Amino acid sequence: MLKFQWMKLSELGEFGIIDLINGINSRLADKRQHSWQNLILGIGDDAAAWRGNSHIQLATTDSLVQNTHFHLDATSWKELGWKSLAVNLSDIAAMGGIPQYALVSLALPADLTTENIVDFYEGMASLATEFGVSIAGGNLASAPYSIITITVIGYSEHDEILKRSTARAGDQIAVTGHLGLAAAGLQLSNDTIKLSPEASKIFRNHKCEPVPRVREGQVLLDKGVTTAIDISDGFIADLYHICEASQVNAKVYPDQLPIHPLLKSSFTEYEKMALYGGEDYELLFTAKKEVIQQLTQSIDCPVTIIGDIVDGRVPAKVVLIDSKGKSLPCDRQGWEHFRDGRDKSEIR
Amino acid sequence: MLKFQWMKLSELGEFGIIDLINGINSRLADKRQHSWQNLILGIGDDAAAWRGNSHIQLATTDSLVQNTHFHLDATSWKELGWKSLAVNLSDIAAMGGIPQYALVSLALPADLTTENIVDFYEGMASLATEFGVSIAGGNLASAPYSIITITVIGYSEHDEILKRSTARAGDQIAVTGHLGLAAAGLQLSNDTIKLSPEASKIFRNHKCEPVPRVREGQVLLDKGVTTAIDISDGFIADLYHICEASQVNAKVYPDQLPIHPLLKSSFTEYEKMALYGGEDYELLFTAKKEVIQQLTQSIDCPVTIIGDIVDGRVPAKVVLIDSKGKSLPCDRQGWEHFRDGRDKSEIR
Repeated sequence: MLKFQWMKLSELGEFGIIDLINGINSRLADKRQHSWQNLILGIGDDAAAWRGNSHIQLATTDSLVQNTHFHLDATSWKELGWKSLAVNLSDIAAMGGIPQYALVSLALPADLTTENIVDFYEGMASLATEFGVSIAGGNLASAPYSIITITVIGYSEHDEILKRSTARAGDQIAVTGHLGLAAAGLQLSNDTIKLSPEASKIFRNHKCEPVPRVREGQVLLDKGVTTAIDISDGFIADLYHICEASQVNAKVYPDQLPIHPLLKSSFTEYEKMALYGGEDYELLFTAKKEVIQQLTQSIDCPVTIIGDIVDGRVPAKVVLIDSKGKSLPCDRQGWEHFRDGRDKSEIR
Repeated sequence: MLKFQWMKLSELGEFGIIDLINGINSRLADKRQHSWQNLILGIGDDAAAWRGNSHIQLATTDSLVQNTHFHLDATSWKELGWKSLAVNLSDIAAMGGIPQYALVSLALPADLTTENIVDFYEGMASLATEFGVSIAGGNLASAPYSIITITVIGYSEHDEILKRSTARAGDQIAVTGHLGLAAAGLQLSNDTIKLSPEASKIFRNHKCEPVPRVREGQVLLDKGVTTAIDISDGFIADLYHICEASQVNAKVYPDQLPIHPLLKSSFTEYEKMALYGGEDYELLFTAKKEVIQQLTQSIDCPVTIIGDIVDGRVPAKVVLIDSKGKSLPCDRQGWEHFRDGRDKSEIR
């Protein structure tokens, strides 16, 4: 029996790798999808081409940098493929949009193997299929370590989009799902913490294969929400982004945070993890009470009200209020690059 | 008098840099442009948003990696800004498209200064303005060295695009402009070569600030050309891409190559540089003789016929024919990443 031998990228060469990617992509693409059927040219020409529409168009780009955003000893190439696309789909979700096409730009070391590439595209394709996205193009370059940059293009079916700048005093602040689970996933490589297999699995899934709230974003827009952001930097940091763009202040009630029971039972600092942890890829949105009440019927995940938008002076300020109405200190934290001396693997 | 002090990116932090970029972009953008006026949301939300159209949409992405595609001792940040966008506009040009929006993803070391960023965006903005492109978004991450990934989105005004797969036997092979000038630019840091200031300037411009053939690409499409590619890997390598996609062979007449007089007087190997040099960002296209004859009236740059498309077996083959009709050896070469032991700074 022939034993299949994975090759190093350096043996295959750039055009060989492009042929490999084209083959994987063509094999894995769900060709019944609307986006695939509208595609005129995919991988293999100077640009991707597809039939346009007159809706509001959306485009976003996000990078994962080795040793900044991921470590190859803590994540698989399959998870990396999933996550690289997920962080971009999450941005489209935060606009209430429908994602269509992804362009995948890879800067990779030449000593990676073809197996790594196959795993990466399989991880990406499984998420792409779930949300009707076609991988339409990309770029390949050699580099000393890996940087994955994906651009996702989509549109809004409504003549509106979810923005950061439309929060108004009187709005309530709500989030989808649970907070802090990805922050818990960061702790899996911390040997001093003992977790049950069930907790480990949930934390790892949220950290390595987050499910972007694409359908939920469309429901928000459909039900009259106008303000949303996805939580990548951390709940408080991302709430600051909304407050700054909208020129409002916010009050947050930490005892109302949606904390998963396994997070609460595994970590004493669960509240900090939920407030500042980052990479939750849940939607943080604001709207009038009635709008939120109505949409909870139409949405497939928990929606929790955890604060209020209030008037206030610039610069924007977020205040934490405990169950007795007392203000608590609230650092403006989150995942911020470029600062000296920050340990990126710490919970911030 | 206050002395203005450039800051390190690490002092400013991620959101400070985004504010800086937003400010530069808003100051430099030409707001009368069609693309700017259709922009609903630019930098500062989860995704860029603009009003769509029902034409064929185009998107392309390309990266410049430090020490692979550029060296900071041989190029300025301004030139780098120009070139990072130019290589992407060139891909849109090769489809006959109209570029509209750019998303700029930067992975940068924290010890760069704000001056580097300002220079980079100024270089990029000067090219963007020339071709009606608006910088609509991007991403920022810290990394040990610089990788710049730009995605450009555009459309075709015609219901057609220029492809690689439509070359047919009987077509002539033509190129815009001159070949080999960027390859000459690579030699500027070679101390053993003495060049006139005029030659140095032209070679450097072609290497560091290539002008993409955006308008010329649209003329090609308008005049009935169906097949084109931009020359990034090298004339022969890119002709191979066309031959493979179209399942045809090609004959090339090296004595008909458009060689700039300064290239000929500066390098004995000018022919090799023109055939294999890469990064010319000229358009290589094929069409019937009458189509090419007609379009030369409408185009603002030299157009030179340098070969013929012929029938032939797969795998595709490109043959060089000298002035006496004799076949010459033709290596399939070009700028290919991931191969072991290739000196990327050599002319290939």
